[in-house]
Amino acid sequence: MPVVVQTIERADAAVIDGLAHAGVATVHEAQGRIGLLAHHMRPIYSGARIAGSAVTISAPPGDNWMVHVAIEQLKEGDILVLAPTSPCVDGYFGDLLATSAMARGCRGLVIDAGVRDVRDLTQMGFPVWSKAVFAQGTVKATLGSVNVPVVCAGAAIEPGDVIVADDDGVCVVKRADAAAVLKKAQEREAAEEGKRKRLAAGELGLDIYDMRGKLEQMGLKYV
Amino acid sequence: MPVVVQTIERADAAVIDGLAHAGVATVHEAQGRIGLLAHHMRPIYSGARIAGSAVTISAPPGDNWMVHVAIEQLKEGDILVLAPTSPCVDGYFGDLLATSAMARGCRGLVIDAGVRDVRDLTQMGFPVWSKAVFAQGTVKATLGSVNVPVVCAGAAIEPGDVIVADDDGVCVVKRADAAAVLKKAQEREAAEEGKRKRLAAGELGLDIYDMRGKLEQMGLKYV
Amino acid sequence: MPVVVQTIERADAAVIDGLAHAGVATVHEAQGRIGLLAHHMRPIYSGARIAGSAVTISAPPGDNWMVHVAIEQLKEGDILVLAPTSPCVDGYFGDLLATSAMARGCRGLVIDAGVRDVRDLTQMGFPVWSKAVFAQGTVKATLGSVNVPVVCAGAAIEPGDVIVADDDGVCVVKRADAAAVLKKAQEREAAEEGKRKRLAAGELGLDIYDMRGKLEQMGLKYV
Amino acid sequence: MPVVVQTIERADAAVIDGLAHAGVATVHEAQGRIGLLAHHMRPIYSGARIAGSAVTISAPPGDNWMVHVAIEQLKEGDILVLAPTSPCVDGYFGDLLATSAMARGCRGLVIDAGVRDVRDLTQMGFPVWSKAVFAQGTVKATLGSVNVPVVCAGAAIEPGDVIVADDDGVCVVKRADAAAVLKKAQEREAAEEGKRKRLAAGELGLDIYDMRGKLEQMGLKYV
Amino acid sequence: MPVVVQTIERADAAVIDGLAHAGVATVHEAQGRIGLLAHHMRPIYSGARIAGSAVTISAPPGDNWMVHVAIEQLKEGDILVLAPTSPCVDGYFGDLLATSAMARGCRGLVIDAGVRDVRDLTQMGFPVWSKAVFAQGTVKATLGSVNVPVVCAGAAIEPGDVIVADDDGVCVVKRADAAAVLKKAQEREAAEEGKRKRLAAGELGLDIYDMRGKLEQMGLKYV
Amino acid sequence: MPVVVQTIERADAAVIDGLAHAGVATVHEAQGRIGLLAHHMRPIYSGARIAGSAVTISAPPGDNWMVHVAIEQLKEGDILVLAPTSPCVDGYFGDLLATSAMARGCRGLVIDAGVRDVRDLTQMGFPVWSKAVFAQGTVKATLGSVNVPVVCAGAAIEPGDVIVADDDGVCVVKRADAAAVLKKAQEREAAEEGKRKRLAAGELGLDIYDMRGKLEQMGLKYV
Repeated sequence: MPVVVQTIERADAAVIDGLAHAGVATVHEAQGRIGLLAHHMRPIYSGARIAGSAVTISAPPGDNWMVHVAIEQLKEGDILVLAPTSPCVDGYFGDLLATSAMARGCRGLVIDAGVRDVRDLTQMGFPVWSKAVFAQGTVKATLGSVNVPVVCAGAAIEPGDVIVADDDGVCVVKRADAAAVLKKAQEREAAEEGKRKRLAAGELGLDIYDMRGKLEQMGLKYV
Repeated sequence: MPVVVQTIERADAAVIDGLAHAGVATVHEAQGRIGLLAHHMRPIYSGARIAGSAVTISAPPGDNWMVHVAIEQLKEGDILVLAPTSPCVDGYFGDLLATSAMARGCRGLVIDAGVRDVRDLTQMGFPVWSKAVFAQGTVKATLGSVNVPVVCAGAAIEPGDVIVADDDGVCVVKRADAAAVLKKAQEREAAEEGKRKRLAAGELGLDIYDMRGKLEQMGLKYV
Repeated sequence: MPVVVQTIERADAAVIDGLAHAGVATVHEAQGRIGLLAHHMRPIYSGARIAGSAVTISAPPGDNWMVHVAIEQLKEGDILVLAPTSPCVDGYFGDLLATSAMARGCRGLVIDAGVRDVRDLTQMGFPVWSKAVFAQGTVKATLGSVNVPVVCAGAAIEPGDVIVADDDGVCVVKRADAAAVLKKAQEREAAEEGKRKRLAAGELGLDIYDMRGKLEQMGLKYV
Repeated sequence: MPVVVQTIERADAAVIDGLAHAGVATVHEAQGRIGLLAHHMRPIYSGARIAGSAVTISAPPGDNWMVHVAIEQLKEGDILVLAPTSPCVDGYFGDLLATSAMARGCRGLVIDAGVRDVRDLTQMGFPVWSKAVFAQGTVKATLGSVNVPVVCAGAAIEPGDVIVADDDGVCVVKRADAAAVLKKAQEREAAEEGKRKRLAAGELGLDIYDMRGKLEQMGLKYV
Repeated sequence: MPVVVQTIERADAAVIDGLAHAGVATVHEAQGRIGLLAHHMRPIYSGARIAGSAVTISAPPGDNWMVHVAIEQLKEGDILVLAPTSPCVDGYFGDLLATSAMARGCRGLVIDAGVRDVRDLTQMGFPVWSKAVFAQGTVKATLGSVNVPVVCAGAAIEPGDVIVADDDGVCVVKRADAAAVLKKAQEREAAEEGKRKRLAAGELGLDIYDMRGKLEQMGLKYV
Repeated sequence: MPVVVQTIERADAAVIDGLAHAGVATVHEAQGRIGLLAHHMRPIYSGARIAGSAVTISAPPGDNWMVHVAIEQLKEGDILVLAPTSPCVDGYFGDLLATSAMARGCRGLVIDAGVRDVRDLTQMGFPVWSKAVFAQGTVKATLGSVNVPVVCAGAAIEPGDVIVADDDGVCVVKRADAAAVLKKAQEREAAEEGKRKRLAAGELGLDIYDMRGKLEQMGLKYV
């Protein structure tokens, strides 16, 4: 059953970069409020804002062997996505693996477990979104799989799906939907720009979005 | 039952600013060790230190409609305080709402739920203390109330109460007690200044606070 | 039963400093993947990297009296380690106690509870690893002990053991093992240096660590 | 500031018993979906279903002195409600205190902390809703208050408010609202009885509540 | 986007019943240690042991409208599976909905949120595995979907997949794999029977599974 | 480093049985309020009340190999105590291992991780105190140790220490202290018996323990 899928399809590079620019909140809204990973997935440092194609890892608790296997499958612009097969906070990944992943063009790691060497990773500019920072070492004793569908932090992710990650967390976009989602995200951004100006000028959302009638009709009382 | 209270009383502006300067820990001590919100309320960025009058929001889970309603009720120097009616980590609030709130003079948000666009909020200098950072979008379908008493993160808050927030968390001061609490806070600060110097010089708290006799009497053994 | 042990043995100062330099992850690995405190122990600010001899405190929930007692026992280079006798997040420690501890040469605090005045502590450069940031004040009513064995955040710690703490968390090294652990840590660092270069050059861990045969033998399939 | 309020008003006994019979879920709905304590408040055994007047206790963490003080204030039909001043799971209450409370006519305990001797309490038929079962002993060193307003498990409770508790958790009803809430609860129960029969006969909620048109209008697609 | 899929395929009834008999732990092992829902999914009462076809619900937080919609889609032997679109512990389901679901032949509910009326549900013999017991009421204001793929408590579930649930928790079996998994589960049960007798007679797993050589070879020392 | 210690000392059997009879809360108090395991350690069924000598297991996350090794070391009256080397909720133990352990005279299992087959274990009368019920299977790939000192659920436990467990949780008594602790526990029970009668007769703890003067002196006000 342990398997490494060597060929995966990826979304268009320009689309991926567009999604990174749009950011997690906008992309999540643009695709109908789906795709977020759980809010316990936090960045190890602020300010990173990336998107890339998911190279997925299904790994046993406390065993990071498959990370080595997955790194060989990385292409420029990919993001490693690790889902342990049961809850775990061990530090599967540190500066040596980051060095190796960066050498393969990897843009970051999304891991529903722990990470370590966060000072080094920060200095290297290798962003990680994780459930925990924990130095606990792992073994290399049991197989897992690479580039299989996983559920990571509550989100179903297929290899090649687009991962978008920033200070708000992590979102997955189905590979086939990436271009359409980007289009909607850009439309949303454009629409928001006008609203932002009106709001900054002191206009109220109640008026911009024409909410007063509906609120009254539903029974909201002003006293 | 959903209601918007349009007129609330606020504490004196100078008192509010004094409480901000004193900070959460000192204010909490000055009023008898009460008023703290739960420790899961963390700032989205370090260094903010504010106080203001609470404009409270009671909102259903996953529904931010009442935030728009509340923003109209804001006056210069207010702080939005949102308590969901059941536990929720959705992102009720982002950069557009912050833009609108800032335009009304709002100093920040305290929310026992999630917030998003934290990178933008940080750049705008709009501080938020929240239970979570989460991009999950919300709907506008069910009413709540504005400026009613709420329990937010374990603390009972009335509209117009003074909210103090800094890197240590969030504290509420009853409006009617604000001036008295400020006075005690300032006395405490003055008293601490002298102690700080003596401690910095190497004197021990055991001696400054005259604890040795009591410790011995209670049975503490030195071996 | 409440007792203060006044004489404890400490590890060699150069060894301690060497362990600080090696850092938590390396030290933890060097001693056989043991000694980590739970991952909920997080630094109040990034970048601190210390090691020192543990002066331990066993304190009742919500009572920081023993911290004053412990400070008298501090020697240059020590680290305070506080374990509450039952789970607690109260703020046992703030800027006044930090002032006092620094005056005695203390390098930091490791506390499986809360801390407050974190803005001041950050400005003072006094690092703390804690379970929570919480302004909740504490009383001085019930005795505890100083320099007795404790379990802090899941790790058994004896007074005089070496505490190593950085952005990855906290690790304890048995005093008697400190020199040997440092040696292994340094060997590990040296060995890693070579691997880091090879990985940075694009070589794969699969090849450097000669894993391909074992993976195949265990049944990993490439498709 | 520590105070014992000796005279509190209580709701009508028949109303209280009626609320017990209606149960937590119905009472919560009848009063507009408010008043629930957090879902971490679980009964130590199944099947208890009580209501009574709240005698409230605000107690320091790990200190059960005020429970003794509160027991003197109990009248037949009361329920003890303990809120620690900071998060705590210690076992404030066991079989001796239950013996004493039962002798005073107390119907049960609601405690946002720990309880112990649960086997004995079960055999005695003294129900407890708590955050934890934990044998950790407490001290009698610091004062608190009895019959003051508290926030317990997220709900604001005044002394004399009606506490309703069963296998679904705990709900508080404002004393002044108790009779009106009971009336609505009974109406709700009556209305549900007819619906229960129709649903048991296979009729659908979609039809009984006439939802199909609204669902279609909002855009629900059947495929 | 909100959609109700009216036609789903189901596994063979005899296979489903066989899986119920095998139980969660055996089925999970038989299919290669996959398919478990998170361990926070606990039964509201002990002793239930069911399997059935998943009728899935994707519902907004605090909104149980789609449960009514889903009940119409139930066939004899189905199990309702509800995944909220963001974390929620509200009580989406109680005795009226259970009455309706039972009338349609539903065997139980698996919900990554809250449930209420648990005393009634227990008396009715309607089993529920949930994240919480919580009386908090929900609204009917926002659409969701029925019979779409969901991630529930960390497991990806398609409508028609087989849900197995007992005191150990909940497991999902892909519909297409159900027969093969049952076969392996039965083989496993048969194999375990012989081992159980040998173990009961005092033979050691070390000998039955021939582990001693491997342990020695890996370096286990007996002292 | 992985080691199996084959010879451990045990406390006197009559003392052990006496401690079981006294129960967790009393034993914990009798030895000075120490020795409790964390409150997340809950029994899989109510009513079990045991004591025995600890046979300890230090096991990697998700790997139950050492349980087989430990079972060989069991003697009549022992209790297995398993501490994972990092946080884990996997089901290390089920009915086959329980069958084997019972055949060796084992009285129960204390595990800071998961357990499965709880229905079978309940029927067999094999009690378990665990952090979780979870069917997740484990591997046999990495060594650990048996009969070494461990920290289990926050308590330091040496092999041969006495474990006491009942519905209140789990407590450890140092082997060398067992007889003295039993004596104090029995004295405590005797003393409590008289108090229980007085309390049942309506006397108040305030009077029995002579608390009124101290409360007044500390400033408690009755209003």
